Amino acid sequence: MDVRAAVAVEAGKPLEIHRVQLEGPRAGEVLVEIKATGICHTDEFTLSGADPEGLFPAILGHEGAGVVVDVGPGVTSLQKGDHVIPLYTPECRQCEYCLNPKTNLCQAIRTTQGQGLMPDGSSRFSLNGKPLHHYMGTSTFANFTVVPEIALAKINPDAPFDKVCYIGCGVTTGIGAVINTAKAEPGCRAVVFGLGGIGLNVIQGLRLIGAEMIVGVDLNNDKKEWGERFGMTHFVNPSEVEGDLVPYLVDLTKGGADYSFECIGNTKVMRQALECAHKGWGESIIIGVAGAGQEISTRPFQLVTGRSWRGTAFGGARGRTDVPKIVDWYMQGKIEIDPMITHTLGLEDINKGFELMHSGESIRSVVVY
Amino acid sequence: MDVRAAVAVEAGKPLEIHRVQLEGPRAGEVLVEIKATGICHTDEFTLSGADPEGLFPAILGHEGAGVVVDVGPGVTSLQKGDHVIPLYTPECRQCEYCLNPKTNLCQAIRTTQGQGLMPDGSSRFSLNGKPLHHYMGTSTFANFTVVPEIALAKINPDAPFDKVCYIGCGVTTGIGAVINTAKAEPGCRAVVFGLGGIGLNVIQGLRLIGAEMIVGVDLNNDKKEWGERFGMTHFVNPSEVEGDLVPYLVDLTKGGADYSFECIGNTKVMRQALECAHKGWGESIIIGVAGAGQEISTRPFQLVTGRSWRGTAFGGARGRTDVPKIVDWYMQGKIEIDPMITHTLGLEDINKGFELMHSGESIRSVVVY
Repeated sequence: MDVRAAVAVEAGKPLEIHRVQLEGPRAGEVLVEIKATGICHTDEFTLSGADPEGLFPAILGHEGAGVVVDVGPGVTSLQKGDHVIPLYTPECRQCEYCLNPKTNLCQAIRTTQGQGLMPDGSSRFSLNGKPLHHYMGTSTFANFTVVPEIALAKINPDAPFDKVCYIGCGVTTGIGAVINTAKAEPGCRAVVFGLGGIGLNVIQGLRLIGAEMIVGVDLNNDKKEWGERFGMTHFVNPSEVEGDLVPYLVDLTKGGADYSFECIGNTKVMRQALECAHKGWGESIIIGVAGAGQEISTRPFQLVTGRSWRGTAFGGARGRTDVPKIVDWYMQGKIEIDPMITHTLGLEDINKGFELMHSGESIRSVVVY
Repeated sequence: MDVRAAVAVEAGKPLEIHRVQLEGPRAGEVLVEIKATGICHTDEFTLSGADPEGLFPAILGHEGAGVVVDVGPGVTSLQKGDHVIPLYTPECRQCEYCLNPKTNLCQAIRTTQGQGLMPDGSSRFSLNGKPLHHYMGTSTFANFTVVPEIALAKINPDAPFDKVCYIGCGVTTGIGAVINTAKAEPGCRAVVFGLGGIGLNVIQGLRLIGAEMIVGVDLNNDKKEWGERFGMTHFVNPSEVEGDLVPYLVDLTKGGADYSFECIGNTKVMRQALECAHKGWGESIIIGVAGAGQEISTRPFQLVTGRSWRGTAFGGARGRTDVPKIVDWYMQGKIEIDPMITHTLGLEDINKGFELMHSGESIRSVVVY
C-alpha cells in the first residue's frame, strides 16, 4: 500500500515528505495506522548525523499512537481495531532479559532493530522500489507502519492519540526513571538536571510518588514556570549561583539529593548530578544520551562513600505491561500531558517541529495525521 | 597508665616501639586491652604518607580484638570482661545515617575521628608528655587503647582473638560487600579483581551465599590456589589473556558478571570491573581505595544500558550489629579465617609484618600482644 511518510534521506538534511510503499504484516507483525507522533530529541540526534548507529534513508519517529489495521499470521494478543502505542523497547516475555526482574531491555529483536530491519531481516518500507530503513522498530513518521507484535502496547481506546503518543517515549522515560529505576520513596529529596520534555516528566513522576523536595536545574529561567507547573519546588539556574553548583545543591537539599536525574546528555552535568547526591545513599540516574565517545568521570571516593551511579533506558519500563498503566494514569488525571504538548502540526510541517525543538520554543511538538 | 605501642612517628618511617602513656576512659569511653591486631593495607597507606588525611605522630592499627578493662561514666552496653572488636565505622544508632537502612556510615564521631581525636576533642595517648594521634578511632597497635562505646562490638567470648581480629576489617569488608552492598543472590556469577586479604573474603562471601560462578582475577598465579581454597571457581591472569580482558570476562561469565568487585584500588581495574558487568543488571562494587586525586571513567552508555556503579566501606556492615554475627559464623564454621592468617608476630616485629605485605608473602599478618 502507499502511505505518507517523512523520509530521512540523508544525515543533516530536512525530512522529505513522500508517498512510500509499505508491505503488509508478515508472521508476528502488525500493521498500525499511526494517528499521532511526537518529535523527540532522539529523532533529531539521528537525523543530525551525530548518532554513530544512524542509518539512511530511513523513516524516523518512535513516539506514536494508533490503531491496528491488520495482523500477520500467529499474532494472538492484538486484533484489528485495538488502540496501540509502538514500543522501541519491546517486551517478548521470553528472553533472558524479560525473565530477569532487574531489567527492561528485552533483547528479542535487538539485532535486526539496530539494523533498521524487521525481525526477519527485511524492510517493509520502500521508495521507488528501493528499501527504506525502519527506525527503532517503530517508524512513526509514516501514517501507517508495520511493527512486531511484541513491540506494541494495547491501550485504553478512549485515550486521545495526540496526547498519549507522548507516552511512547518522553512520559514513560521520565516517570519510569522515578518509579522503576530509582524506585524513589515518598518524602525523598530530588534534583533534576534539564527541564525539557524528559526532565518535566521526571518532575511529575516525583510529584506522583510524593517527593518532599523537587529541585529543577536549568540554564533557562523560562523553565522555572514550566517546572513549577508539574511539581518542582525549587529552581536553580547554575549561571546565577555564586561558586560551585554541587555544594550549593548539597546545601539546598540538606546534605544532598536522595535521587538525582540527568536529563540532558552532558557528561559534565552527569558528574555534578552524581556528586550532589547524598553521602551514604544518594543515587544518581543518567537518562540523557551523551555524544559519541564522551566519558563520565569522578573520584571513586564518591562511590565508596555510598553514592551509586546508574542509568535508565525507556524509564526501566516494560512497555506492554507498563505503558497501558501510564495511559490509564493519564486518563484518571494522575499525571498531566496536555500542557507539555505545546505544538500540533500536520506531517507536511514536521521540519518546523524540529526547528521549534532547536529554538527551545516547544516542550513537545506532535504531528497529527 | 603505661602501655606498649608501635608509634608512627613520621610518614615513610618504620614504626617505633615505645612505652606510651594512656589516660583512662572518659564519659562514653571504654578502656580495652588489645589481645591481637591485624596489619592492613590501610595502615600501610597512611604510614607511607600517601593518605592525604594521615596525621603524625599517631598510633595506627584498626583490626583488633580484646577485652574490656574499664568503662567511663555513662557506658551501659559494655562491662569489664566483655570481649570486643573495635570499629573504625561506629554505630551510634541515633544519627541520620544509622536511622537510614541504606547506609552504615554512622556520622556520630566522624569529625573528631578524622582529626585523630576522641569525641571530646582530646587524645588519650601521649609520649613524653606530647599527645599522640588516635587513628581511625581504634589505634590497635597498642596493647591498651581507649575507644568510644559506640565503636565497640561485643563478641562471643570463646572466639580466639588472634583470628577474629581480622573481622575488624578485612573479613567484614569482603563478606559484607557481598551480602550487604551487593546483596548477591544464590546462583549469581561474580568476578573478583585482586585476590589479597579483601578479595579472598569477597570470594568466601560469594561461596557463603551460593554463587554459581566465582571468577578471580589476579596478576599473580600463586593466588589461584588461594582463591580456590575459599571457593573461587575460575582464575584469570590478565597477563595471560590474549586480547582485551573485558570481552574475555564477559564471554567467560556468559554475558557478564551479575556482580563484580574491585579489591585493589586501581582506577583502571575499576573501569574493567564495571564494563565486565552484565548488560541490563550487572552491578560493580568498588572496595579498593584509589590514590589521592585519581578518577574513574567510563562511557555513560555502560550505565544507561543497565549496569550500576557503586562502592562500599566496611562492607556496608553496621559494626555493633553485624560483627558479632560474623564472629558467630566463624565459630560455626560457616566462614574460614585461620588459613588467611599466614603470619603471627610479636609487637616488636610489627615492621616485619609490613614487609611481608609489601613482598606479597602474607595474606594477613597478625600481631599478638
